[in-house]
Amino acid sequence: MTGDPFVVVGGDAAGLSAASKFRREADRDVIVFEKGRWISYAHCGTPYFVEGSVERLTDLLSLSPPAAEERGIDLRRGHEVVSVSPADRTVTVHADGERFDQPYAELLVATGASAAAGPFDTALDGAFTLHGLDDAAAIDAYVAAPEEYDRDRLGDGPVDADRVDHNVALDPPERAAVVGGGYVGVEMTEALVARGVEVHLYQRSDRLLPPFGAAAGERVESTLEAQGVTVHTGTSVEELVGEGRIDALRVDGGTRPVDMAVVGIGIEPNATLLDGTGVDRGPNGAIRTDDYGRTNLPAVYAAGDVATARHAVTGEETWVPLGLTANRAGRAIGSTVAGDPTPVGDVAGTAVVKAFDLECGRVGLLAEAAADAGFDPVGETITAGSRSGYYPGGDETVVTLVADRTSGRVLGGAIAGEDRAAVRIDTLATAIEADLTVAELERLDLAYAPPFSPVWDPVLVAAKVLNGRL
Amino acid sequence: MTGDPFVVVGGDAAGLSAASKFRREADRDVIVFEKGRWISYAHCGTPYFVEGSVERLTDLLSLSPPAAEERGIDLRRGHEVVSVSPADRTVTVHADGERFDQPYAELLVATGASAAAGPFDTALDGAFTLHGLDDAAAIDAYVAAPEEYDRDRLGDGPVDADRVDHNVALDPPERAAVVGGGYVGVEMTEALVARGVEVHLYQRSDRLLPPFGAAAGERVESTLEAQGVTVHTGTSVEELVGEGRIDALRVDGGTRPVDMAVVGIGIEPNATLLDGTGVDRGPNGAIRTDDYGRTNLPAVYAAGDVATARHAVTGEETWVPLGLTANRAGRAIGSTVAGDPTPVGDVAGTAVVKAFDLECGRVGLLAEAAADAGFDPVGETITAGSRSGYYPGGDETVVTLVADRTSGRVLGGAIAGEDRAAVRIDTLATAIEADLTVAELERLDLAYAPPFSPVWDPVLVAAKVLNGRL
Repeated sequence: MTGDPFVVVGGDAAGLSAASKFRREADRDVIVFEKGRWISYAHCGTPYFVEGSVERLTDLLSLSPPAAEERGIDLRRGHEVVSVSPADRTVTVHADGERFDQPYAELLVATGASAAAGPFDTALDGAFTLHGLDDAAAIDAYVAAPEEYDRDRLGDGPVDADRVDHNVALDPPERAAVVGGGYVGVEMTEALVARGVEVHLYQRSDRLLPPFGAAAGERVESTLEAQGVTVHTGTSVEELVGEGRIDALRVDGGTRPVDMAVVGIGIEPNATLLDGTGVDRGPNGAIRTDDYGRTNLPAVYAAGDVATARHAVTGEETWVPLGLTANRAGRAIGSTVAGDPTPVGDVAGTAVVKAFDLECGRVGLLAEAAADAGFDPVGETITAGSRSGYYPGGDETVVTLVADRTSGRVLGGAIAGEDRAAVRIDTLATAIEADLTVAELERLDLAYAPPFSPVWDPVLVAAKVLNGRL
Repeated sequence: MTGDPFVVVGGDAAGLSAASKFRREADRDVIVFEKGRWISYAHCGTPYFVEGSVERLTDLLSLSPPAAEERGIDLRRGHEVVSVSPADRTVTVHADGERFDQPYAELLVATGASAAAGPFDTALDGAFTLHGLDDAAAIDAYVAAPEEYDRDRLGDGPVDADRVDHNVALDPPERAAVVGGGYVGVEMTEALVARGVEVHLYQRSDRLLPPFGAAAGERVESTLEAQGVTVHTGTSVEELVGEGRIDALRVDGGTRPVDMAVVGIGIEPNATLLDGTGVDRGPNGAIRTDDYGRTNLPAVYAAGDVATARHAVTGEETWVPLGLTANRAGRAIGSTVAGDPTPVGDVAGTAVVKAFDLECGRVGLLAEAAADAGFDPVGETITAGSRSGYYPGGDETVVTLVADRTSGRVLGGAIAGEDRAAVRIDTLATAIEADLTVAELERLDLAYAPPFSPVWDPVLVAAKVLNGRL
């Protein structure tokens, strides 16, 4: 070990979790280089800021720069790491027009991901991707009528005020296209409806939220339609059209007038920093990491949206860029670098999303992915009440459960419903990570009380039915 | 195998689950003897009928007699089985003043449990236990002002109309004592508050809901008090006092005027039917059963509130009379008797209860029970938000987590909070039944989205903190 510090590139969930944990466990220096102005913010909360249910933009900050510094973290905002030399164990940093080299004892690359724009011109006024607080502030400003805009909602963070001012000054939209029916698309659809905008949601594949399976996707679609959203599945938007400001989409060979578009077609790992270093990569070009978050480069770790992880069901590497994965891996790497080797943990692909009152969850491998991974999947979709039938307030809950025919092992599942459906996915996540079979799942002693669950929880009903087919 | 039928004693959850499953799987006769008028009703729903949130008493019926007969079940209500002769494989039945012997090929004793009244005179007008639909109807009638009583709420079941009429005619109560701070006590307290009755809740031990641990018990107590309930912990009620009708309690050496009392001090297995047969018994005098629900008597099974079960954590026999256990064991025995041996499943002691907006769950062994069972328990109680802090509608959720210091295995836990706290106990139930360690629990990929959970679910926060102590 040298006297050099632990260097972290990226001041968001993974990077600051690692730096914080490291400082609690080790009496050594850690420097966090963040190229932007913001640190440690909740990506997942940005649609709810636009919607209006989060009061201030700065409520989305998890850790303020002073709080990071109180933890003993040497935080350098506005510092972009532009290259890494694994041989010299140094990074090259740009800041304030200057350039310098910083030696490291260990390096964590936690550069996150960026929103993909695909072929779409998001430089047009009224056209957005959503990845970060400045995007959220800009969308909020664009949607607001100038005379009603409430600048206090920005709080006192380092927001891009020029971009906000520019968007406030534009006429508010009447009709928006949301391009992409994944998490961001569904959440932004709800947010824009809440703001009084007419929304058309375009999804290239034939259903919304494909990783949640057909049954949940159908529930989401009917929920959105009941809220006045026009859902176009199986429809590819080809281009955002306009001069200066968006005024139409090219879609299905025609044009549709819109005055706003939010593009939510996925994210891409920000992995170019390690180009030319010989780093190994995994799916989607993410940086390949092992069970401790180590890359193949000596003393170089990666975590969060830029890194691969191991899938709990397949045991293979995967890329599932989500918040808990980033926080957990960062924290584990902080411990490991501090001298206490800690596995980052597998991912099970657990995810939940809200669409108005509908809650959806998914985990593991549904049938198609399971077959691709070499399993012999058998699946069932059931509908069951979320509460005892006589108790008010319940909802029909749809559960899809997939198992391996040979071993009986639970491989994946999805849940959709309006009454506590999302949290129920954790039962399946736990069962899957513990390698339970469907027969074992069926015999679990799950909670029952009329206000919360029928005697047979919907998860147990699904297990009973699927077990009957094994 | 003889040509004799499968005989079931008791027409509630365990008995009818067994008979239904048996008829689906076997082409043989099943007779269900039920001594009362009701079959297959939801005990757990009765407080909610009194409260008014369940519309009709008959909404609490799971299976009607005609529906049972459609399943091919030979259902005999008003038939009391008074003795069993294991040597002859016959039961003796009383019905309509007659007595007859019925041979069986296999026998299931599913006689349930009864509410304990302890030293209390529940024959007084205004004094009740709650176990069954007639009790619920009587309490509802007693609470109602005669001029406001809605007889339609009884539905068209075989209710004890004389008892209802008697209670309707009495003056409605102004002040009630609930004796016992377990599930029934807490749920009836809420129900009576909803009906406008002033409630004093008396609990002999120093906290409510002892199996849920101190943290949850304190939350329940403060929740009830905030609703105007006077909670007396560490207080033994000695006697219900009155002539004809209750007018006071004897408590703390004095008397307190009340005009109603609900006694909820526990239940007792209805196991006397097998007295003298040489049947083995377990805790609380419940009938000892093995992994397939078999007693030590040949071809005699027991299930539901009258039977023991194996505890998932200790592997020892236990008596946890709850609804899912009864349904699951009955169903498994139906399969086993039909020729497909099916284990009844362990119990983990999973339970949930609602107190106004507060949801509580518990599972496994908390510290004291774990020490009694020979573990070296270490526990932590944490408080964490149920949602991302910036998202509205969340609540501070209290999680108690207990593990074995030596093995790290999760032994038990409890959760209390107003936002989806109850369903979260299923995560712990699954982890416990899968024998996960705290370190494995900490690394679970649980669901995160701002409306449902913070990045680190309260269960994960508890695991992190407890794992730090191991």
